[in-house]
Amino acid sequence: MSTTRRVDPGRRDRILAATLDVVAEHGVAGTSHRRVAAAADVPLGSMTYHFDGMESLLHEAFSRFAEESSAQFRARLDAASSPQEARAAALQIIGDLDAATTRSLVITHELYTLAAREPAYRDITHDWMARDRATFARHFDDTTSRLLNALIEGIVLHRALETEPHDPSVDIAGVDRILADTHRPERRR
Amino acid sequence: MSTTRRVDPGRRDRILAATLDVVAEHGVAGTSHRRVAAAADVPLGSMTYHFDGMESLLHEAFSRFAEESSAQFRARLDAASSPQEARAAALQIIGDLDAATTRSLVITHELYTLAAREPAYRDITHDWMARDRATFARHFDDTTSRLLNALIEGIVLHRALETEPHDPSVDIAGVDRILADTHRPERRR
Repeated sequence: MSTTRRVDPGRRDRILAATLDVVAEHGVAGTSHRRVAAAADVPLGSMTYHFDGMESLLHEAFSRFAEESSAQFRARLDAASSPQEARAAALQIIGDLDAATTRSLVITHELYTLAAREPAYRDITHDWMARDRATFARHFDDTTSRLLNALIEGIVLHRALETEPHDPSVDIAGVDRILADTHRPERRR
Repeated sequence: MSTTRRVDPGRRDRILAATLDVVAEHGVAGTSHRRVAAAADVPLGSMTYHFDGMESLLHEAFSRFAEESSAQFRARLDAASSPQEARAAALQIIGDLDAATTRSLVITHELYTLAAREPAYRDITHDWMARDRATFARHFDDTTSRLLNALIEGIVLHRALETEPHDPSVDIAGVDRILADTHRPERRR
């Protein structure tokens, strides 16, 4: 068995990448070992060698997808060294997400639908949100980090499912309103 | 043909309701005329009498689902007669959505996934958002209405896909920050 890995060391990664391609094309419901093996160009038997069934395959593929998204997120905010730059980074993140491919949008929604149906996948969405909040928390307090994360999710989701053109002044107003309190000495009630 | 309708006048409605039940259980990918007919307890042939194929069936079923959601939304805000009451209504809407059934959460995500994949369904999500924004716009300006709608979407979506307990103070802070500007004479930059 170990010779398989030596001969084709990238096989496991290729299966994970192919899983996301198949999910993007056919949905979770249409994702089978057979389709993933064909997309990854590996023998069907190697699927069961590398993965313990469909649930662990989907779990790992979606986890990887979410981690890559968090890494892009973090790259934007790591480059910021002041509240003003962190504000600009939040707006850039909205722009990044708006510019995401249909593939990425569809995979995100497939994951949300799966996690809505099956709590066994909610550790992926939980960890994703926790990582992104932690990234914001280098610059902002916990409440602000949660709200910024939620607002960005809502703005990008609504825009992706809209048919009308995009008004960036709304994003700027939203980020500024969420950040406003953090610059005030006392919290308003 | 018209006798069919006279004999069973609720049949068309029952098919639409059954479509949502089947989507909740099997997903859009697993929704077939056969399954819907069985769930609605109608002969398979009456599906094609009432609906012009799967796309128009799904389109009408999801449209109805979205309209019912907007009506609940509107009922909350119609009861408000001051900015303070509208603020309270926004928080109640978050509570309503948090308390929604798994069925309703799954149907919402199935619709979002479908609209992410196929622009032909985006008129449903567009109309849904436009209605809810118009409901907010009786109390708030357009930017505030868009932001409130987006923030509520993000908060509820994140919470539904979370594994940790819920802190309502975050919702209150979010709604207050989005509404804050509308009570100020001048817009901050």
